[in-house]
Amino acid sequence: MINGYDPRTGETTGDAIPETDTAGVDKIVSAAATAGTAWRATPAKERARALEAVADALTAHVDELWRLADQETALGEVRLRGEVARTAGQFRLFAQVVRDGGHLDAVIDHADPTATPPRPDVRRVKRPLPGVVAVFAASNFPFAFSVAGGDTASALAAGCPVVVKAHPGHPGTSGRVAGIVREALPHPDLLGLVQGMRAGKDLVQHPRVVAAGFTGSIAGGKAIQALIDEREVPIPFFGELGSVNPVVVLPSAPAAEVASGFAASLTLGVGQFCTNPGLMFVPEDDELRKALAAAVEGTTGGPMLAERIRDGYLGGLERLGALTLLAEGNPGEGAWAVTPKVFTTDLESFAAGLPRVAEECFGPASIVVTYRDPADLRPVLERLEGSLTATIHSSLPGEAGEIAEVLSRKAGRLIWNGWPTGVAVCWAMHHGGPWPATTVSAHTSVGATAVDRWLAPTAYQDWPAKLLPDELKDGNPLGIPRRVDGALSV
Amino acid sequence: MINGYDPRTGETTGDAIPETDTAGVDKIVSAAATAGTAWRATPAKERARALEAVADALTAHVDELWRLADQETALGEVRLRGEVARTAGQFRLFAQVVRDGGHLDAVIDHADPTATPPRPDVRRVKRPLPGVVAVFAASNFPFAFSVAGGDTASALAAGCPVVVKAHPGHPGTSGRVAGIVREALPHPDLLGLVQGMRAGKDLVQHPRVVAAGFTGSIAGGKAIQALIDEREVPIPFFGELGSVNPVVVLPSAPAAEVASGFAASLTLGVGQFCTNPGLMFVPEDDELRKALAAAVEGTTGGPMLAERIRDGYLGGLERLGALTLLAEGNPGEGAWAVTPKVFTTDLESFAAGLPRVAEECFGPASIVVTYRDPADLRPVLERLEGSLTATIHSSLPGEAGEIAEVLSRKAGRLIWNGWPTGVAVCWAMHHGGPWPATTVSAHTSVGATAVDRWLAPTAYQDWPAKLLPDELKDGNPLGIPRRVDGALSV
Repeated sequence: MINGYDPRTGETTGDAIPETDTAGVDKIVSAAATAGTAWRATPAKERARALEAVADALTAHVDELWRLADQETALGEVRLRGEVARTAGQFRLFAQVVRDGGHLDAVIDHADPTATPPRPDVRRVKRPLPGVVAVFAASNFPFAFSVAGGDTASALAAGCPVVVKAHPGHPGTSGRVAGIVREALPHPDLLGLVQGMRAGKDLVQHPRVVAAGFTGSIAGGKAIQALIDEREVPIPFFGELGSVNPVVVLPSAPAAEVASGFAASLTLGVGQFCTNPGLMFVPEDDELRKALAAAVEGTTGGPMLAERIRDGYLGGLERLGALTLLAEGNPGEGAWAVTPKVFTTDLESFAAGLPRVAEECFGPASIVVTYRDPADLRPVLERLEGSLTATIHSSLPGEAGEIAEVLSRKAGRLIWNGWPTGVAVCWAMHHGGPWPATTVSAHTSVGATAVDRWLAPTAYQDWPAKLLPDELKDGNPLGIPRRVDGALSV
Repeated sequence: MINGYDPRTGETTGDAIPETDTAGVDKIVSAAATAGTAWRATPAKERARALEAVADALTAHVDELWRLADQETALGEVRLRGEVARTAGQFRLFAQVVRDGGHLDAVIDHADPTATPPRPDVRRVKRPLPGVVAVFAASNFPFAFSVAGGDTASALAAGCPVVVKAHPGHPGTSGRVAGIVREALPHPDLLGLVQGMRAGKDLVQHPRVVAAGFTGSIAGGKAIQALIDEREVPIPFFGELGSVNPVVVLPSAPAAEVASGFAASLTLGVGQFCTNPGLMFVPEDDELRKALAAAVEGTTGGPMLAERIRDGYLGGLERLGALTLLAEGNPGEGAWAVTPKVFTTDLESFAAGLPRVAEECFGPASIVVTYRDPADLRPVLERLEGSLTATIHSSLPGEAGEIAEVLSRKAGRLIWNGWPTGVAVCWAMHHGGPWPATTVSAHTSVGATAVDRWLAPTAYQDWPAKLLPDELKDGNPLGIPRRVDGALSV
């Protein structure tokens, strides 16, 4: 049985939920696959309406949902209401994506009998992967990266049924969200839910599963990859793993703004974001150091999502304890509460401690590395592992060119004079990055192009018009963007 | 040392070539990475011109190249001249792709301070993977899937330097092609060449290698994946492996045309194509059976590319010997010559022998499976593994709908009343398919979108105009297709 826990008390909350056994997983995946046949063939307009129906249903239940999630996560009303809105917004964005049709990359090359050799008529369009998408939900976003999160929304948008492995940190919320989404979809089995670690193994090894999405730790991602490697037929695995999100503060940046922005970003959601700024390079400067210390001392911690996550944070602090403590915030309240802490070291010592010193410590902790000359930064930044984001603070773009070039090879999103927490859900977003930030750096788990992960092209050669998908028929009946004989038209 | 062999005589040809040792691989990859820094930053127009210069150079050397390759492969003048033209054509297509810029998927979302939460300015574009692409050349295309083949052309187009591991079947041709391409590129080190199996291991495990492309056998692909799995930092592996390319002949198809087309496709290039029709389902029909037998008996074999490949074919024939021989062609001439052979069985026996009976036998061999009722085909087709292609022969599209639906989940390219050999190099081509046809079914190794494998997006948040890539600057200075605030424009 799986129990939800209240991070404020450390006591169980809600009813215990049974783990899904192997037969149960098989039944749920098979039902999803069966429902998926009709979903795959559902016209884009209808699919878009269904995604919007899910968004409406989530919004309609926000009062119930935030309370349920707050009991299991202690993330609070404002954040959780906002997260339900974001989750519904993701479904609405994917409805737009599906209506637009540009994500299908439709291409038509008419026959050219005069070519050497003569070229047949070839038409290509992306279609849903032929089977069920497995989604492993995250601890830290009970809505937006969970049962009805971005992986689920994008896979449904692609035309794939989904089975989610619930995160044990919010089993009750997971079950309720699944119920709401299942009711809103044209067929309830388009979204399945399984609970328990064993169920995760059975899910990702099921022959009808064709791809998997995951948000979690590097260790968790490696464990799932190992399970996938045992499969007879390999499947793509889109994992969003750990990230330290380096921030480089250049000498021209205003100290007060940097200090207050850093402290706020570091402690948002008790630091439980994959985009948390875990590493910051700053000039050796007493004013900035004092401002940072004061800002961090003004923060307050809070309970982490789970006892295991709290223990992980405390373990990380022990490792960071080898550095100098720059400042700490106020301890938060609650059974699993933790205190924000910021450590400091100089660039030379930091470089000597790589790569271990730069490993992610999940929670409200960060390292401030001081440098004397910005020219010294480049070789150290070159040695950093991949991150989801990298940030530069400067009031002189001209001083940042070289640093920007290095960081552009180290992270999927580059931020100027801002902070990495808060990922906009939009067409242009890329929430990905080089290993270990993700398993596949070409893909994103946030934004419109997240749908690409669940699609693969099919080419049709001299195919009869009657059997062509509408997306490829002459006259463009769906009015989607297409490239015809080399020229893109919208 | 590595020797080329003449398949007509079985004797060595050309000078023996030394294997590249570990230090040599490191030197070549490091030189490619260094040259790649400037290549990555080279404007699209210049990059396109460089690709065209490679095409020109290959074309200028066709007389020399076909002769050299013919000594090592015995593929003959017509085929090899055509293949050099195809190889040059691939570079020209990628020059068009680079000029067009649509492959970069540039997206701009302007800031929206009224959104909840306020949305920053976010811009996204695809950029070359930050490092060297490793390419493993194929045996059966000494030009088009080898040193200057589609993997190399698409990776250079993306902006990545390339190091190729030559195929031992044509070491002399590989060296000469590398020399021609290196001279035509802005910097010779943008294309490196290594020789020998050990060099392949060193190459794919080199820390500066960020992705690998491969065309070859399932066993070879699995071996390279195992080497990649040993890396500290994983990299994407785009393998194009085995494929049986099922053909379904429906009752309305004209027997004579099917028979002659099949025999020609089966024996083209001594059956040494990954798109060879290795499996065909036909109605029980004496006329068709006789026409097939006659057509196959009219074919002639020839020498295979290598002794090991010939031995593999003979091994495959032993396995297929458990079926009934329908017909065989004339033995070809040469030391490693083989005879085309076609076997037959009925649908029930075939189904009982799955999956082993349907394994690829590389060379001019195929299985003709007879069925009584097209309605019996569907459950058997459902059990086939993934292929690069699937083909339907019919004069009534109305009778093919269900079969087409199954095959569309089993192959990357669907062909109507044609044959799978001969892959058009064009914008719409998809040369891929579900495992084991490829390692990543979302990608192709032929056609314009082959470039996608070597790109990954970067998002720029509130980034200063001065530091933005030209592709993302206001006013669209490069005139490329872009999606701005949700609307695609060209």
